[in-house]
Amino acid sequence: VSEIAHLGPLELLSPRAEESLRFFVDVLGMEVEGQEGRSVYLRGWGDYQRYSLKLTESDTSGMALLGLRAWSPEALERRVAAVRAAGLGGAWLDSADRGRGRGYRFSGPDGHPFELYYEVDRYAPPEHLRPALKNQPQRYTGRGAAVKRLDHVNVLSADVRADRAFATDVLGYRLYERIQLDDGTEAGAWLSASIAAHELIYTKDAYGAHARLHHVAFWVDTREECLRAADLFLDHGVDIEAAPSKHAIAQGFFLYGIEPGGNRIEVTTGGYFVYDPDHPATVWTEAERRKGQAWGVQTVESFHTYGTPPVEAPAAR
Amino acid sequence: VSEIAHLGPLELLSPRAEESLRFFVDVLGMEVEGQEGRSVYLRGWGDYQRYSLKLTESDTSGMALLGLRAWSPEALERRVAAVRAAGLGGAWLDSADRGRGRGYRFSGPDGHPFELYYEVDRYAPPEHLRPALKNQPQRYTGRGAAVKRLDHVNVLSADVRADRAFATDVLGYRLYERIQLDDGTEAGAWLSASIAAHELIYTKDAYGAHARLHHVAFWVDTREECLRAADLFLDHGVDIEAAPSKHAIAQGFFLYGIEPGGNRIEVTTGGYFVYDPDHPATVWTEAERRKGQAWGVQTVESFHTYGTPPVEAPAAR
Amino acid sequence: VSEIAHLGPLELLSPRAEESLRFFVDVLGMEVEGQEGRSVYLRGWGDYQRYSLKLTESDTSGMALLGLRAWSPEALERRVAAVRAAGLGGAWLDSADRGRGRGYRFSGPDGHPFELYYEVDRYAPPEHLRPALKNQPQRYTGRGAAVKRLDHVNVLSADVRADRAFATDVLGYRLYERIQLDDGTEAGAWLSASIAAHELIYTKDAYGAHARLHHVAFWVDTREECLRAADLFLDHGVDIEAAPSKHAIAQGFFLYGIEPGGNRIEVTTGGYFVYDPDHPATVWTEAERRKGQAWGVQTVESFHTYGTPPVEAPAAR
Amino acid sequence: VSEIAHLGPLELLSPRAEESLRFFVDVLGMEVEGQEGRSVYLRGWGDYQRYSLKLTESDTSGMALLGLRAWSPEALERRVAAVRAAGLGGAWLDSADRGRGRGYRFSGPDGHPFELYYEVDRYAPPEHLRPALKNQPQRYTGRGAAVKRLDHVNVLSADVRADRAFATDVLGYRLYERIQLDDGTEAGAWLSASIAAHELIYTKDAYGAHARLHHVAFWVDTREECLRAADLFLDHGVDIEAAPSKHAIAQGFFLYGIEPGGNRIEVTTGGYFVYDPDHPATVWTEAERRKGQAWGVQTVESFHTYGTPPVEAPAAR
Repeated sequence: VSEIAHLGPLELLSPRAEESLRFFVDVLGMEVEGQEGRSVYLRGWGDYQRYSLKLTESDTSGMALLGLRAWSPEALERRVAAVRAAGLGGAWLDSADRGRGRGYRFSGPDGHPFELYYEVDRYAPPEHLRPALKNQPQRYTGRGAAVKRLDHVNVLSADVRADRAFATDVLGYRLYERIQLDDGTEAGAWLSASIAAHELIYTKDAYGAHARLHHVAFWVDTREECLRAADLFLDHGVDIEAAPSKHAIAQGFFLYGIEPGGNRIEVTTGGYFVYDPDHPATVWTEAERRKGQAWGVQTVESFHTYGTPPVEAPAAR
Repeated sequence: VSEIAHLGPLELLSPRAEESLRFFVDVLGMEVEGQEGRSVYLRGWGDYQRYSLKLTESDTSGMALLGLRAWSPEALERRVAAVRAAGLGGAWLDSADRGRGRGYRFSGPDGHPFELYYEVDRYAPPEHLRPALKNQPQRYTGRGAAVKRLDHVNVLSADVRADRAFATDVLGYRLYERIQLDDGTEAGAWLSASIAAHELIYTKDAYGAHARLHHVAFWVDTREECLRAADLFLDHGVDIEAAPSKHAIAQGFFLYGIEPGGNRIEVTTGGYFVYDPDHPATVWTEAERRKGQAWGVQTVESFHTYGTPPVEAPAAR
Repeated sequence: VSEIAHLGPLELLSPRAEESLRFFVDVLGMEVEGQEGRSVYLRGWGDYQRYSLKLTESDTSGMALLGLRAWSPEALERRVAAVRAAGLGGAWLDSADRGRGRGYRFSGPDGHPFELYYEVDRYAPPEHLRPALKNQPQRYTGRGAAVKRLDHVNVLSADVRADRAFATDVLGYRLYERIQLDDGTEAGAWLSASIAAHELIYTKDAYGAHARLHHVAFWVDTREECLRAADLFLDHGVDIEAAPSKHAIAQGFFLYGIEPGGNRIEVTTGGYFVYDPDHPATVWTEAERRKGQAWGVQTVESFHTYGTPPVEAPAAR
Repeated sequence: VSEIAHLGPLELLSPRAEESLRFFVDVLGMEVEGQEGRSVYLRGWGDYQRYSLKLTESDTSGMALLGLRAWSPEALERRVAAVRAAGLGGAWLDSADRGRGRGYRFSGPDGHPFELYYEVDRYAPPEHLRPALKNQPQRYTGRGAAVKRLDHVNVLSADVRADRAFATDVLGYRLYERIQLDDGTEAGAWLSASIAAHELIYTKDAYGAHARLHHVAFWVDTREECLRAADLFLDHGVDIEAAPSKHAIAQGFFLYGIEPGGNRIEVTTGGYFVYDPDHPATVWTEAERRKGQAWGVQTVESFHTYGTPPVEAPAAR
């Protein structure tokens, strides 16, 4: 069992911050929890923390930070020790971000910026967002796609094998599915710290670039909400990269769009739960992946190559 | 085949007009099309006319008018002649309401105010509501329950038999289902001018009062949207009279709430289509009705008695 | 208002009749109502007639007959007169098919075989299929995709304009949407005899062949059932031609598969209702169609060319 | 983090075993994995073990055994030691049940029969049940309600506080929600070994009886499948105790029916995930529970009193 409780908050960069903000608020239906400097703090109605997304104005796009909450103060110490033992370096931060205790910031093998932490504020809604049911962190406003919470993150890596080993061996994630190319290369790894079929995904960067983001996924409870989100994307002029359908890997139901800042966003639900403590990872071959998604939909080419920040031209490989 | 194309717009009275407006806009997600005097004109995103609901401030609640659009100018003339032949009186209006041609206003047997008309403006959305798909009258905003259009109306009648005969014989509606009590009394009639399982419903007024409204129903395309609307009602403090479930009669999926002005509102979907031109009306007995709704849910008592405007005390019967 | 109540039953040919039967029974979940000679009569749980599909063993595939039920005996006479007046010929049949009164058989402009009729048996379910709700023709068995009823038919035509004019002028169908190519050619016409957005569709035969079938569509009440049907197609080895998504034209939600006999079958729901008696047909241009389906899904090439019976090679045009 | 991976298989007793079997196979859509003596072994299409339900013919109803799979051989040893340290007794079984390694059988504080185990066979489907997607244990047959897997169990207890303490302190379950009566009595405890909002529930036995079962819940992925299951229950004559609606506690979507053997069965989905490692249990008061379920549906009286095996008369309290 992993000592990581969950990932998030995630800091996302946008060169068109105002338009990105309108996307997250009006189309995804997130709530603005606060604002500091060039950053806006956002939350889904089901996020238990004060925020799950920090949107920061920048001259580029991509993921600036991925938080990882440890299960306990002791688990935090142990994970930090493991990170150091793995030679990944890093340092305790002097000051914590909004509503969070001290954190240990370091880079994963491919350069993705992580912060391990334990202490965090639980959300206390203002009057107008107080829910009717006390087991819900916030009122269901129903605005836009009304995403419930941050669900998972897919980052690109020049070396999936190394990152996958880091996630399992250092962080304690479990590997549920992976893609292995005919030449033995690992092209993708679906990892989870819980029974959810994926929380952290590494897929191969087509350009061999480093530390890029593939997509951030927000959860809705039903497939109907994904379909509804597609109608909202359509009528709000959001670029739909992949219309709603069902993944073969992890069996999640998806809708992919590109937010105004250029980052790929998924609205997701479904999938399966892994209750087997010895679950053997499903391994997909190139031939199997060629069949497309669960119902035969062929993935658009951009899905295999585009990430943020974008790269100018393919790097030599 | 009926010469009535459909019912609507409907004029609804509210003694708490501002709060009612907030309900229709924020919770049901309707759009304000215009405003005149003490009335606000509202529309669902799928209504082809400029508006389907006229909300008027008043000292009471209930239905002030139910429009009935004829199939053609000739059909309009024929229906007006039929109304007159039935001795129901009425008169051509001097001036038409917002975006509508001349109309013939009269009262049904129980006193419900109707207006037959043919000419009407088709909706032309402003820039910010222009849809992505040209076969859609308006952008899908997704706000609140995001009802698509006015669907059906259920009025109360002291004499269901007389009103049912009026609807079939004078207006040309078809009778698809009805309730017949053990003593032979007709307690409910489900009528339609199309293949939809119901458009106009008459049910017995428990107080023997006249011309009252039972509920106005707005359509959503999926049952999931009814369930979602229930969450919105809950978190917006709207009184839920009957939680989502499936009717036995007409098999519609429902959610009933009371809007701030006191009128009962339904969010509905489902049901069946009647393609049989000789469809024999389904007749329900008292014993059958005692089984409750489709899945056995017992209808709350208020559903059998409450209507708008409310009556002080049961009239002698 | 059309004098046609609805289309169906439809006779479908299959060169692999036993496998086709297994598809319709096990995967689509239809019920065998009877069997005669080389034909099996099938029904959805919501079909009011005894059957809506007649599956006939043959050396080819395609549609052998499309029934058209008139609104009344008089409507039948008038439509037959109109067919004759249009020079389409045809003849009254000596003997009627299973449970149907006398019919008038003729070919449409492109050669599609039609039968106009009025008298028909209403379905009376055997004991084991008796429903709990008396306003339902048959028990909901829930087997396979559990399609409710025959919904619409899309046929291919070498001359869409001629067939469209026949449908509107002779049969009285209403035209709700159509495609017009840049050179003025009509490439598709969506027609309906009711408020449903389409019942009879003509699209251009890519080979200029005659009287072919594009697809037969069966209705389910929810989009979730379309998604579920896709899982069933997948696990039953049915060839999924187009995974579930939303059409731009008519906004129907679809799943297309090829049944073992080679005919294209759709599981469909959604769309919109046309209550406007003067509804102006939506006209789609080539440029607009290039955008793909509602959410941008590009239609697979076979969808534009494949029909049944298949043609050997493109005819000269 | 709990050392219990999940609960199940569950052994259920039925005095009408053949009819119960028909219910689980035809209505719930489970698969018969095997048969031994008076027991039939059943599975949902998503269960990773060979079976999750053992249905045993008996002269009474109720739960004969609840399996608890430990995370590892070491976790198993530690949990057994904890059970012994708690004075609950128990013993290692000489022979294991179908496809399971050795187990430690003991009774919980109220007498519920548990078996801790670790080793278990993973399911290997026969040819006709082989799935199209390799990350799925079995083909999706779609028969009946097509439940995916065993989800949670609700048992009745004469002393909820004692059982709740046992679950958290001895088994390591986490407490997510509970009911506390005005006099301080604990009336219900919702416990989980994962992020799922509940897996093991204890509620107060209205008769003060011991070791009874309230209900066994099977998971479906969507609310639409719960609604669909209600139609199946209706048309298969299954007694619907509570029609589909949403719980306030844990926010699960439910359908409750009584299977022919008398045991209460739930078809469930929804709810929320608990990612907070320090999640404070939600405490519901009597006043709050009086509001009924999430959307105000009042729970039927039998839900508060009926359990299996049934008790003759209320015990003195």
